[in-house]
Amino acid sequence: MSELVKVGLIGFGTIGAGVAKILLNKTDRLAASIGRRIELARICDKDISSDRGVDIPAGVLTNDLNDILNDPEITIGIELIGGLEPARTFVLALLDAGKDVVTANKALLANHGPELFEHARKLGRTIAFEAAVGGGIPVISSIATSLQANEIESILAILNGTSNFILSRMEQTGANYHDALREAQQKGYAEANPAMDVDGTDAVQKLSILSQLAFAAHVNWKSVSRVGIDCVDAIDIRFARELAYSIRLIASAKRTQDGLELKVSPTLVPCSSPLAKVDDAFNAIQVVGDFVGPVFYQGWGAGQKPTASAVVSDVIDTALGRTAITSASLRMWSGDRPALAVRDAGEMVSKAYLRLIVDDKKGVMSVISGILGEFDISISSMLQPEKEAVDEPTYMIIMTHATSQRRLQEAVARIRGLDFVYGEPVCLAVQG
Amino acid sequence: MSELVKVGLIGFGTIGAGVAKILLNKTDRLAASIGRRIELARICDKDISSDRGVDIPAGVLTNDLNDILNDPEITIGIELIGGLEPARTFVLALLDAGKDVVTANKALLANHGPELFEHARKLGRTIAFEAAVGGGIPVISSIATSLQANEIESILAILNGTSNFILSRMEQTGANYHDALREAQQKGYAEANPAMDVDGTDAVQKLSILSQLAFAAHVNWKSVSRVGIDCVDAIDIRFARELAYSIRLIASAKRTQDGLELKVSPTLVPCSSPLAKVDDAFNAIQVVGDFVGPVFYQGWGAGQKPTASAVVSDVIDTALGRTAITSASLRMWSGDRPALAVRDAGEMVSKAYLRLIVDDKKGVMSVISGILGEFDISISSMLQPEKEAVDEPTYMIIMTHATSQRRLQEAVARIRGLDFVYGEPVCLAVQG
Repeated sequence: MSELVKVGLIGFGTIGAGVAKILLNKTDRLAASIGRRIELARICDKDISSDRGVDIPAGVLTNDLNDILNDPEITIGIELIGGLEPARTFVLALLDAGKDVVTANKALLANHGPELFEHARKLGRTIAFEAAVGGGIPVISSIATSLQANEIESILAILNGTSNFILSRMEQTGANYHDALREAQQKGYAEANPAMDVDGTDAVQKLSILSQLAFAAHVNWKSVSRVGIDCVDAIDIRFARELAYSIRLIASAKRTQDGLELKVSPTLVPCSSPLAKVDDAFNAIQVVGDFVGPVFYQGWGAGQKPTASAVVSDVIDTALGRTAITSASLRMWSGDRPALAVRDAGEMVSKAYLRLIVDDKKGVMSVISGILGEFDISISSMLQPEKEAVDEPTYMIIMTHATSQRRLQEAVARIRGLDFVYGEPVCLAVQG
Repeated sequence: MSELVKVGLIGFGTIGAGVAKILLNKTDRLAASIGRRIELARICDKDISSDRGVDIPAGVLTNDLNDILNDPEITIGIELIGGLEPARTFVLALLDAGKDVVTANKALLANHGPELFEHARKLGRTIAFEAAVGGGIPVISSIATSLQANEIESILAILNGTSNFILSRMEQTGANYHDALREAQQKGYAEANPAMDVDGTDAVQKLSILSQLAFAAHVNWKSVSRVGIDCVDAIDIRFARELAYSIRLIASAKRTQDGLELKVSPTLVPCSSPLAKVDDAFNAIQVVGDFVGPVFYQGWGAGQKPTASAVVSDVIDTALGRTAITSASLRMWSGDRPALAVRDAGEMVSKAYLRLIVDDKKGVMSVISGILGEFDISISSMLQPEKEAVDEPTYMIIMTHATSQRRLQEAVARIRGLDFVYGEPVCLAVQG
């Protein structure tokens, strides 16, 4: 029961240091609990001198990738450098060298999943990626194994902790977007350049991985309908609250008769939904299966320790042989399982929240509702807050019944052109 | 990729019919998605004539267990008859006949886990039991595999849907216990005899399985500290709410330096906890790991379709060989993994909620706080609602700081004996 499994780690950043902490400091406990000794044999990084808060035995650190590639005793390679290149080249090299791969790299999988998994299959190797979506939340393995009796009907998820921190702080404190973003940066939840988090790119890439996993859908993440959170104003949070909704950046995948509907958008979520109650930098995923019904997961979606937990669980699964079984059954990004086609974004149907700034004068509502009517968009409710000064423009909030994205966009383009409408209309998805 | 796996099902009740619906109606979809054909070859029940809403092919139904035991092509046996006997005998017989077993029977595992798993190991067979705890929520496989990099620190869980329905209805509508119970019975959430659900037995049995899984603890479920929900009054729900808590039946397992603390009790859960927001007949589990932090799961904990989803996921895991790997690594109920000792219930320390009915006269509070002081129990807050009539006894609510169960019980016994204290004091756990 004490068979030794040697592991090589590429990328000794924050997550890499977390993985090293588990594998080096908990070797005995892991061996006792899984019946296999996992040895972190090599750590490869350009910088092998900075202190990462973990003691590394002599001879483990290297800046030569060949020390991992050419060591036949190392059977598992962990890729934690992030980004596309050289990560892609390194993963291919690990596979070529006969190693199974564990990665936390969602951008890599979203962009090069088909190539990497095809290469792994050809060589009889595996790629495990629990940490690529939802950080420590075991959503990948849940969908890949535990929920396999089900046809997945939908996934609604909060996949970006930074955005969730910002939106939930705006909700809690009434702060505007920029102040909440600054707080997220101060707390280390947001990068100096937060673009990929707040513009929805990170969430879209993760959604495309989930969509391949749950629906066998081949998704070009760049073509997924995507709205970032920087259009959300404190006033939207307040109006949403009055209508019994919370605003969260929701990544959604929905099976319909016409294909898979995918989108990432700041979304009004009914306060009764568990997703509306997800605060702070948590991630959460609600998967609905035809038999299991809704299953809801919440946990830390990023950070050193939760992500390292997911990476090491993949290492254990790979060491024990579970990954090989799951891989063979899943056939990720292969052409040979029944795939759901992705529906054209314009055809997708949902309720919408529309916030306009308009002149406060007679007839405005009538013109706007007339335009919506022309596009067959019916209004479920309208809200016009009291304003502070006379003769100032005022907010107008419109909640629509279900309508297609295309009709909504066309109607909004017409409304934007009206001379009593100011600035850019804000258009958010409404769930339920 | 179309290898055939034959399955025999014992027990054609509600869950059995759900399993039959998936295995018979979705054979092709399952085969396409897992690369293996699963054939429900035999269903054994005493009653093979009643309609269960699913078409069974000729020759599948039988009331002779030997039709399963003696068919060497059947490699997996599903036990869904529930209860201790003959379930125990049948599971042993399935193992003896060389079948791997899938069961949803928490009472069986809580009572006979060590014997059954020992027998399975001796014969090189496996027992899978995802459906025994949390219905469709994949909490067993999460702890067994995805969270394995972690030392589990605690589990807080709502494991009984009936109790949760009753408590959340009391909270939503102000109904008293008996009216909420009646509503649960009308909706089919509670049995005519709801004892095992509302007295905490069901939750304790599930907790003992989770404790073995997560902490390798050998738990005699009968000795776990257990309080049922029938002591909870509408007034407690209201007071809890005023103090920013919800009351839920919480099964908790907590690793401490002095061993594993286990209990099932109606518990005041801070409104900010996701557990406080679990309504209806949902189950929920919060697992805290040393690396992953808190991971929260919510889903249907009972019912035909969610439970069948879990049973079939076990069948798939067993058919593909994942269960064999996990079993060998987990060694459930074996003596050879580091086990956490269960702490004596009296030594467990937590905050408490105490509701008394007392005479409304001077000096009462002073005597009661004096007794608590004698037992070193300090009060964190006290609440005395306005009462409707003068000279009537009144409620007194006391929230204590952390104290041991033993001291609390001794103090409450003394308080109960006071001549200005009426009826039975109600004593609930407080989380956080």
